[in-house]
Amino acid sequence: MHPDDKLAELGLTLPELPTPLATYVSYKRDGDIAYLSGQGPRRPDGSYPTGKVGRDVSVHDAYGHARIVGLGLLAAAKAVAGDLGKVEILKVLGMVNAAPDFAEQPAVINGCSDLFVAVLGERGKHARSAVGFGSLPNGMTVEIEAVIRIHP
Amino acid sequence: MHPDDKLAELGLTLPELPTPLATYVSYKRDGDIAYLSGQGPRRPDGSYPTGKVGRDVSVHDAYGHARIVGLGLLAAAKAVAGDLGKVEILKVLGMVNAAPDFAEQPAVINGCSDLFVAVLGERGKHARSAVGFGSLPNGMTVEIEAVIRIHP
Amino acid sequence: MHPDDKLAELGLTLPELPTPLATYVSYKRDGDIAYLSGQGPRRPDGSYPTGKVGRDVSVHDAYGHARIVGLGLLAAAKAVAGDLGKVEILKVLGMVNAAPDFAEQPAVINGCSDLFVAVLGERGKHARSAVGFGSLPNGMTVEIEAVIRIHP
Repeated sequence: MHPDDKLAELGLTLPELPTPLATYVSYKRDGDIAYLSGQGPRRPDGSYPTGKVGRDVSVHDAYGHARIVGLGLLAAAKAVAGDLGKVEILKVLGMVNAAPDFAEQPAVINGCSDLFVAVLGERGKHARSAVGFGSLPNGMTVEIEAVIRIHP
Repeated sequence: MHPDDKLAELGLTLPELPTPLATYVSYKRDGDIAYLSGQGPRRPDGSYPTGKVGRDVSVHDAYGHARIVGLGLLAAAKAVAGDLGKVEILKVLGMVNAAPDFAEQPAVINGCSDLFVAVLGERGKHARSAVGFGSLPNGMTVEIEAVIRIHP
Repeated sequence: MHPDDKLAELGLTLPELPTPLATYVSYKRDGDIAYLSGQGPRRPDGSYPTGKVGRDVSVHDAYGHARIVGLGLLAAAKAVAGDLGKVEILKVLGMVNAAPDFAEQPAVINGCSDLFVAVLGERGKHARSAVGFGSLPNGMTVEIEAVIRIHP
């Protein structure tokens, strides 16, 4: 099934890519590889859920935030590849704004990883690190970046 | 000397690769490049040493943990390349679960970097960042990921 | 304008590359790609500005530190490529030694990103994550790593 059809089946729509606020770009293509800039769980009104996961925010809620980030990364992937049917996820860095004793980063970032596999199938499987950061931009709960391959 | 012989000379054996607990994979090959997922200092019984380096854990002990992670990454490299004799380490991200005032991350991650050079020689030399994270999965002390080239 | 001329116009000179203190290298070339190891805002005397951004160090000062790191990364890029005129920045990971409630990491790392675009023009634009770390080597305020393409 084409990823666009899979998204429709899941009742999901890709968000619009936000304009980067600085001298960097949302994605950078280099031949058949593209680097997708770190994104947060941006709400339609442009705001972000904030707080430390494990203290202010539950794993369950943060999983949902990571899933929203995954949709944003798929939007960037579609923008750079032209077609989600050409996209393979290679590597993900999952960044959790976590309390110092938080230990369930993988369960949070699964929100993004599970979405990639649900939408892209085998091509959604990726190498990954899912770890806790001291702080994130805007105080948001999760940020994720990715490296992808663009198939012909 | 072949890396397998070097490992034997050092009295080291590669661990079995743990099964990832989520929708990601231990390594992802893309042509002659492979991305190795972040690993921790997994003990044979599946547990991990925990604590904040610089507060609960000494640099000396954490160096040893980074060395164990290095062995796990070599196991992943062998699994994806088929032969350690084909492996070159390109880039390492060394993640230390550190106290906020900790400043010796490089001395910790050297446990992994030194092992790579001991086992792979010139091909073990890599670009690197070795930095302190707010928290890591399972509360483990060190996590390391790598990018490698697979030679013919 | 050639990047060397642009540097001169900006009144900037590239620093000497510090010798890595461990078994890693300042950069690793793999074909036309190079990985630049994480660098800090090294002063000519070898010391680093230290402290937590958002608590001990202002965003304004940390922006300046990130700009110094950018110069160091350009020095590494020139060393590996032979000529800054061949260099394109693909991906940047901006690491801020930040207080737990710090939220302006992008404004800090802009110090590096703005420099890359000022010196390299279109080729200076890159994918990026700019995030807060729990601690950095030597207690320094900022560390940045990059992936670059070397054009013929």
